[in-house]
Amino acid sequence: MRWFLTTLSLLVTSTAFAADPLPSWNDGATRDSLIRFVDRVTQKDSPDYVAPAERIAVFDNDGTLWSEKPVYFQLLFAFDRVRAMAKDHPEWKNEQPFKAVLENDHQALLASGKKGLMKIVGVTHAGMSTDEFAEIVSEWLKTARHPTTGRRYTEMVYQPMLELLDYLREHEFKTFIVSGGGIEFLRVWSDKVYGIPPEQVVGSSIKTKYTVKDGKPTIQRLAELDFIDDGPGKPVGINQHIGRRPMMAFGNSDGDFQMLEWTTSSPGLRLGAFVHHTDAKREWAYDRTSSVGKLVRGLDEAKERGWLLIDMKSDWKQIYPNIAD
Amino acid sequence: MRWFLTTLSLLVTSTAFAADPLPSWNDGATRDSLIRFVDRVTQKDSPDYVAPAERIAVFDNDGTLWSEKPVYFQLLFAFDRVRAMAKDHPEWKNEQPFKAVLENDHQALLASGKKGLMKIVGVTHAGMSTDEFAEIVSEWLKTARHPTTGRRYTEMVYQPMLELLDYLREHEFKTFIVSGGGIEFLRVWSDKVYGIPPEQVVGSSIKTKYTVKDGKPTIQRLAELDFIDDGPGKPVGINQHIGRRPMMAFGNSDGDFQMLEWTTSSPGLRLGAFVHHTDAKREWAYDRTSSVGKLVRGLDEAKERGWLLIDMKSDWKQIYPNIAD
Repeated sequence: MRWFLTTLSLLVTSTAFAADPLPSWNDGATRDSLIRFVDRVTQKDSPDYVAPAERIAVFDNDGTLWSEKPVYFQLLFAFDRVRAMAKDHPEWKNEQPFKAVLENDHQALLASGKKGLMKIVGVTHAGMSTDEFAEIVSEWLKTARHPTTGRRYTEMVYQPMLELLDYLREHEFKTFIVSGGGIEFLRVWSDKVYGIPPEQVVGSSIKTKYTVKDGKPTIQRLAELDFIDDGPGKPVGINQHIGRRPMMAFGNSDGDFQMLEWTTSSPGLRLGAFVHHTDAKREWAYDRTSSVGKLVRGLDEAKERGWLLIDMKSDWKQIYPNIAD
Repeated sequence: MRWFLTTLSLLVTSTAFAADPLPSWNDGATRDSLIRFVDRVTQKDSPDYVAPAERIAVFDNDGTLWSEKPVYFQLLFAFDRVRAMAKDHPEWKNEQPFKAVLENDHQALLASGKKGLMKIVGVTHAGMSTDEFAEIVSEWLKTARHPTTGRRYTEMVYQPMLELLDYLREHEFKTFIVSGGGIEFLRVWSDKVYGIPPEQVVGSSIKTKYTVKDGKPTIQRLAELDFIDDGPGKPVGINQHIGRRPMMAFGNSDGDFQMLEWTTSSPGLRLGAFVHHTDAKREWAYDRTSSVGKLVRGLDEAKERGWLLIDMKSDWKQIYPNIAD
C-alpha cells in the first residue's frame, strides 16, 4: 500500500507544479513578482504570512479588467440608450447634449461638458427602479457590439486578468472591484464575467430612494450624484464598503493612484500594480496624454514606490478571451 | 469492513441529529419556523432550494443582536468620551449639550435635540482618522461597563442570536449587520463578537476624506452626516452595500420595518422576524412606547405579513452568554 500512496502524492505534487496558474502571462519579472508575492503571503511558514480573512485584493475596472477605448463603455451604453429613447423624445433633435449624441457630434458633446454629461446620466441612468435599470443593462450587453472590434463588451475583458482573479481566489483572496464606473452598472455582470459577486463591487453611485407603490416596494434611482469613486474617492469607497485596507491593488490610470498609495502604505507586504497600455496592435497604446485612462503621476512614481508596471505588450500572451464565433 | 462503515455512518447520522444547533432556543413554534425555513432553502431536493451565493441574511444590531437600554450603547460611548475629553475642554462646563452630559442631566440633554446630538457626535466621532477612531472604540470596549448589569457591552449580545448566526453560516448563509448605528463603530468588534467581518457591516456614516500628510495617507472623519441607515434607509443601504435582496431579515423596531418589507416582498421563500422585548426580568420589556426600539407598526402588521415574532421571554432559554468572572 505504501508505494501506492507515495506514488500518488508525487503525482499530486507534480500536477500542482505542472498546471500553470497564469497561462496567458509570459514568463518574466512581472509574472514572477505576482506569484512570489502570493507565495510569500499565503505560505504558512513564510514570515509574511497573512490569514485568509485579511487577503483583500482590489481591482479598478475600466482599462484594468476590460478595455476603455474609444471611451468608457458605460458612456457608450448611455449613448445607445439616448438613441433608443429618442423616438419618445422628438425634442432631443434640437436639444444639447442629446442632439450631439444623435448626430455623433463629438465636438458638441465635449462642449456640453460635465453639465451635459449629467443630463445624459439623468435620462439614461435615473428615473427607474434598480431592477429596471439592471434589466436595461443586461439587455444592452446581450446585443451591443464594440465599434471597432465588433466584440460584445463583456468579451473585451482581459484574459490574463481573469486568470489572475482566479489565481488569487484559489489562494483565498477576496477579490473586489473598485471602479469609477457605476456600481449598479457593474453588478449586473461582474459575477458572471469576473466571478465577483455584487457585494464585492464598489463604484460611483447616484442617490436612490425606497418607495412603496400599491404595496410593492422598489428602490428608485434619482438624478442626483451620490458618490464619485475615483482618485481620492477610491480609498474612501474602500473604507466605506470593505472597512479594511487591501493587500493588493490593481489599476491603470492616475484615478487609481490613491488606491495604490492607500494599499501599499499600510504595514506588511503589499503589492500595487498598473496595467500599462503599451499594445497598439492588439489593444491600444496610451498613457500620458490620453483622454481616458490618463497615467502620468503613476508612471513617474511607480518605480520609487515599488509598484509593478504590467506591460500589456510584453507581459501578456493574449489580450482577450477566445470566443466561439 | 462493511459492518464498520455502516456503523460509522449511523454514528455520524445520529450525531448530526443529536447536536442541537440552537441550544439556547426553547422548543416551540419560533425555533421550528427558523429551522424549517433553513431546511427548505438549503436542501438540494427542496422546491425552495436556493444556491449558497444568494443566501444573504441581514441583522439589525441594537436590540436585535445586543441590548439597547437605557439608550443605544454607542450613545453611552459618546457620553463617556465627552467625560474623558472634558479636562481639555473647560468651556464645556457652561456649554450645552456638553454641560448636560457632564452633569448627567437627561432633561437638558433631551432639550438639546438633534442639533445637540450632532455636536456630541462632532467631537466624539469626528476630527480624527479612521484608525484613531477604531483604537478609541477598542480601548473603550475593554474597560467600559454597562450601568445596570455591570457587564462589558460586548457581553450583552444575545446568546440565542449568536447561535442563529453560526447556524446560518453553517448552512452557507452570508450574514450581514444592517444597523442604524455607526458603521465604523460596529466594525471594530463585529468580527470578534459576531463572526461578521467588516466588509459585511452596513451602518450609518459620517463623511470622510482621504488625506496625505508627510507622505502618510489617512482617512479623516468629518463632522458631517453622510448616510442614515435607518427606516427606509435600510433597503437603500442594503442595495448600496450588498447589491442583492436578502432572504432573511431580523430586526426589533419600526426602524427595521422597511428592511423586513424589502426582504420578504421579493419572490421566493423569505423570512422576516422581530425580536420582541418581552422579558423585564432577564432583559427589558418594551415595544409601543419605548424611546429606543419603538415597535408599533411592526407589531400591528407582523401577523398579516407573515413575520415571526421572537418572544424573548418564552423563546429564549438564556439571554446573554455565560462569562468567566
